[in-house]
Amino acid sequence: MSVARGDALADLVFVNGRVVNVFTRKIEQVSVGVFRGRISGVGTEQIDAAETIDLGGRYLAPGLIDAHMHVESTMMMPREFVSVAAPHGTTGVVFDPHEIANVLGMPGIKLIMDASVGLPMNIMLAAPSCVPSSMFENSGARLEAEDLEPMFDDPRVVALAEMMNFPGVFLGDESVLAKVRLGLDRAIVDGHCPGLSGPALGAYVASGVSSDHECTTAHEAIEKIGMGMRVFLREGSAARNLEALIPAVNAQNASRFCFCTDDRHPGDLHREGHIDHVVRKAIRLGLDPLTALSMASLHAADHYRRNDIGAIAPGRQADLIVFDDLADIRPSSVYHCGELIASDGELVDGAVSAPAAVDDSCSRGSVKLPSGFGAASFRIPAGDSAGGKIRVIESDPHQLVTGEIHMEPRIEAGNMVSDPSRDLLKLSVIARHGVTNGIGLGFVTGFGFPNGALASTVGHDAHNLAVVGTNDSDMAIAAQVLEDAGGGQCVVRDGEVLGLLPLPIAGLISDRAAMRVIEQQDALLAAVRMMGCPIEDPFMPLSFLPLPVIPKLKLTDMGLVDVGQQRIVPLKVDC
Amino acid sequence: MSVARGDALADLVFVNGRVVNVFTRKIEQVSVGVFRGRISGVGTEQIDAAETIDLGGRYLAPGLIDAHMHVESTMMMPREFVSVAAPHGTTGVVFDPHEIANVLGMPGIKLIMDASVGLPMNIMLAAPSCVPSSMFENSGARLEAEDLEPMFDDPRVVALAEMMNFPGVFLGDESVLAKVRLGLDRAIVDGHCPGLSGPALGAYVASGVSSDHECTTAHEAIEKIGMGMRVFLREGSAARNLEALIPAVNAQNASRFCFCTDDRHPGDLHREGHIDHVVRKAIRLGLDPLTALSMASLHAADHYRRNDIGAIAPGRQADLIVFDDLADIRPSSVYHCGELIASDGELVDGAVSAPAAVDDSCSRGSVKLPSGFGAASFRIPAGDSAGGKIRVIESDPHQLVTGEIHMEPRIEAGNMVSDPSRDLLKLSVIARHGVTNGIGLGFVTGFGFPNGALASTVGHDAHNLAVVGTNDSDMAIAAQVLEDAGGGQCVVRDGEVLGLLPLPIAGLISDRAAMRVIEQQDALLAAVRMMGCPIEDPFMPLSFLPLPVIPKLKLTDMGLVDVGQQRIVPLKVDC
Repeated sequence: MSVARGDALADLVFVNGRVVNVFTRKIEQVSVGVFRGRISGVGTEQIDAAETIDLGGRYLAPGLIDAHMHVESTMMMPREFVSVAAPHGTTGVVFDPHEIANVLGMPGIKLIMDASVGLPMNIMLAAPSCVPSSMFENSGARLEAEDLEPMFDDPRVVALAEMMNFPGVFLGDESVLAKVRLGLDRAIVDGHCPGLSGPALGAYVASGVSSDHECTTAHEAIEKIGMGMRVFLREGSAARNLEALIPAVNAQNASRFCFCTDDRHPGDLHREGHIDHVVRKAIRLGLDPLTALSMASLHAADHYRRNDIGAIAPGRQADLIVFDDLADIRPSSVYHCGELIASDGELVDGAVSAPAAVDDSCSRGSVKLPSGFGAASFRIPAGDSAGGKIRVIESDPHQLVTGEIHMEPRIEAGNMVSDPSRDLLKLSVIARHGVTNGIGLGFVTGFGFPNGALASTVGHDAHNLAVVGTNDSDMAIAAQVLEDAGGGQCVVRDGEVLGLLPLPIAGLISDRAAMRVIEQQDALLAAVRMMGCPIEDPFMPLSFLPLPVIPKLKLTDMGLVDVGQQRIVPLKVDC
Repeated sequence: MSVARGDALADLVFVNGRVVNVFTRKIEQVSVGVFRGRISGVGTEQIDAAETIDLGGRYLAPGLIDAHMHVESTMMMPREFVSVAAPHGTTGVVFDPHEIANVLGMPGIKLIMDASVGLPMNIMLAAPSCVPSSMFENSGARLEAEDLEPMFDDPRVVALAEMMNFPGVFLGDESVLAKVRLGLDRAIVDGHCPGLSGPALGAYVASGVSSDHECTTAHEAIEKIGMGMRVFLREGSAARNLEALIPAVNAQNASRFCFCTDDRHPGDLHREGHIDHVVRKAIRLGLDPLTALSMASLHAADHYRRNDIGAIAPGRQADLIVFDDLADIRPSSVYHCGELIASDGELVDGAVSAPAAVDDSCSRGSVKLPSGFGAASFRIPAGDSAGGKIRVIESDPHQLVTGEIHMEPRIEAGNMVSDPSRDLLKLSVIARHGVTNGIGLGFVTGFGFPNGALASTVGHDAHNLAVVGTNDSDMAIAAQVLEDAGGGQCVVRDGEVLGLLPLPIAGLISDRAAMRVIEQQDALLAAVRMMGCPIEDPFMPLSFLPLPVIPKLKLTDMGLVDVGQQRIVPLKVDC
């Protein structure tokens, strides 16, 4: 405070900047002092400091905050994520380690928490609320309220994460409500309720859930903020809702909105950006730049009750971005706690310390194929009653929702097989957690490749092993390759591994440096093109085909699931 | 939640209302269901309920919240305060029991807390941060951080109250910072920093203080919200800042503002109103009515992190007001937790239960005059060096700030005496807590009555006994009357008690019903007029004359205080 009142020297002062005040949403021509990592003063008075940075008229704004994301979606460990996201201006993020929790349970959560220590970013955490997220698949863990409770002793834990089981909430399931109560007692409860409306939404809100990031229309967003929810506008890799939602935001309701990415793939993160990308797009779509910056900082901090970040104001952390153009915000410098972290899109040397010595042994070897697994495991006998149509999952590479169509199967030697000429490919989801041995079998249309197989151990939300292919042999090889790699994604054709992205940490995350992960993913997608698949990234739809909480027809290790009816259905339509 | 989703009957539903949504600041034509005291649903769908209230097009808004007040200023115990404030639409209030704490310490705070239990209002509390508020007067108690700490175990305690010792904060006084740390650890810290600006304000904000209610200009309010403070627009009985501040509020910054009264006198509360009065006045001054209602509900609830009140939304408490005219909001019905509390300005029978059996013995007999006290105690010898001017407090009945003027004293029989012909009256502040025996003596101008004395045991902030008069005899009788009454305010002329408002609880609060307090105050002020005092309520300036934290010249039990210089000064200018 002696520095704040001007009686002692600040460490650093920014002068000649156009400073974004996110409280008033105005630009101010003021100096900003920094002392011991915090803002020591903001004003027109001279601030004496050991170091002066002349911004030469450039803008200075609070660092950007992603209100909700699964770091597993970047396939990077937190340190690597930070090394890519920080140059894009991210200084705060709320990780929901939901994916790794579904594979490893609490040890997986602890791994992410431990690996987040000491990084130059405000890494907050939310406790995964839905492990498993469905009774129609076998995940690697089950977490109840009493398992999650100790997490909240860590001050970085700011919420119970997206409560996806919204029917469980508004129908009053006791185990679900116990988690909500825990979240309310210790922090806040974030929500997840796509399309929920009217009385059902009211019941969900009445439970105490205070946010949603699944809105897809402006009308839905306005109904939700009208009920008091904070709405996160989501623009990630898998789901991109920003364009539809921007019309919902205006000057007087903007404090009820913030931004998140939810899922962000390695290449997108590196090339398009992180929250900076969302802010730029929002501004291009017509949102006032100062409102966009407020949503990307203060409003997220307010939501998580973090009065120490999210604004350029005395006492708050000096998390700052510098940029030239309010119409196209590209951070040229990024500061965390007053330290320069990144400059012109590049991490500053030494900004991210060496990886902490984190014991990740619990995460290794998490892919365990059922005993006796082989190509024969994929055989689907046509059965005695030849003829009759089968249920086929209709996959759209740009949507998580699938359709159900009915087709004549192709039968060879008494077994149903893929028929690439009609884009009818065999799909399998294999229990891979070493606990159960289920192998779900079915067919899918929409992948469109002529020969080979794709496999992935990223398969929401249980992250069993999903494989799609034209023949059982390539499919079996692809699955075996992933077991050997401890998880990942691969492309196999005629017995040859065309591409492999190893994800040895829980079958979800690479143990390599960020740029290596990006290169490996690029090579994998090049292999996809080589095999003649017309989809830019077929692993995205593949990883969501097992998710039995999104309509309509899905495949898990337990079989085909009709999500609307919430039941397992047979392959043959007539059965 | 079964009620929320429409599967069970609500207790109550409001239909055909124009419902104020404070999140979107829009009017909605929706039904509002109530179940077990909480909002069960808001929407256009039909809500089945045991009881239906047809609003016939009237407005339904959240109940009103006073973000900061001293209930002692109403001279009523909490139950009586509620009985007057609830019909005005108040459903929430934050009491700072600062006044009684200065007299009685923790037992006084406990008395207010105990007496607030079970009343039909969300009575929140803030822990008094400045007992005593000055080293230049002797109060009845001293509270350090460790004394206040147990208060925060009560969930009704939402803040450390107005940290008035802002120099202590930004100069880093250890005992003051210990209180700030306590407040930040357990809740939030409210501020009080009239006129503070620039680096000193920055230092104050950097400490973690998150609000201020002492702004007197729009420019000051905008600087403070720009630093991240929440600004309470104050409109009470003693200080009325609304008109000056309304220009600071706009659609995009309104979420940073709420309302408070700070001090509200019995008659004003009853006749003008409470926060409803502030809202009406704000609207008359040009503020958008929906913004005003949001500031009077949601924004105050948000500030104190009370997600369960402050809006008409599922799960929140059904604290509601009904009114006819958005331009002149006068609550015709008031609901607390879904129960009708007041109708057409009158409390509903049985709405406020019988007073809880609270032991208030600690608060009785708190006025103890020094031993040997009598008219002679007021004698001011002129001294040997006859001649020379004296310092006189210049009192303005409409301001807390005083001036200092220098006048020739009137001398009779070797003593300085009052000279009503020049409006030069003797003033005394007598230590009354039984701990010290100081009697401060001085002169004041501005009271303007020809004969008699006024006395009060309400005297901010130490609440010593202040008496002003034309002759020592009436002054001594007035002081003695108040000791006998256990405290209060009185008017004496020629030995006759013209008026007495007894305040036997800590010398601050009546033990009578609200309407009796108001009658007694009316009678007291009639007596003031009878004695020929031209000021409408001379007890207001009298009660602030001892406050040595407001410039310029004040009188305490320790003597005349030059507030700017922060020192005791002699009566004679030449000394």
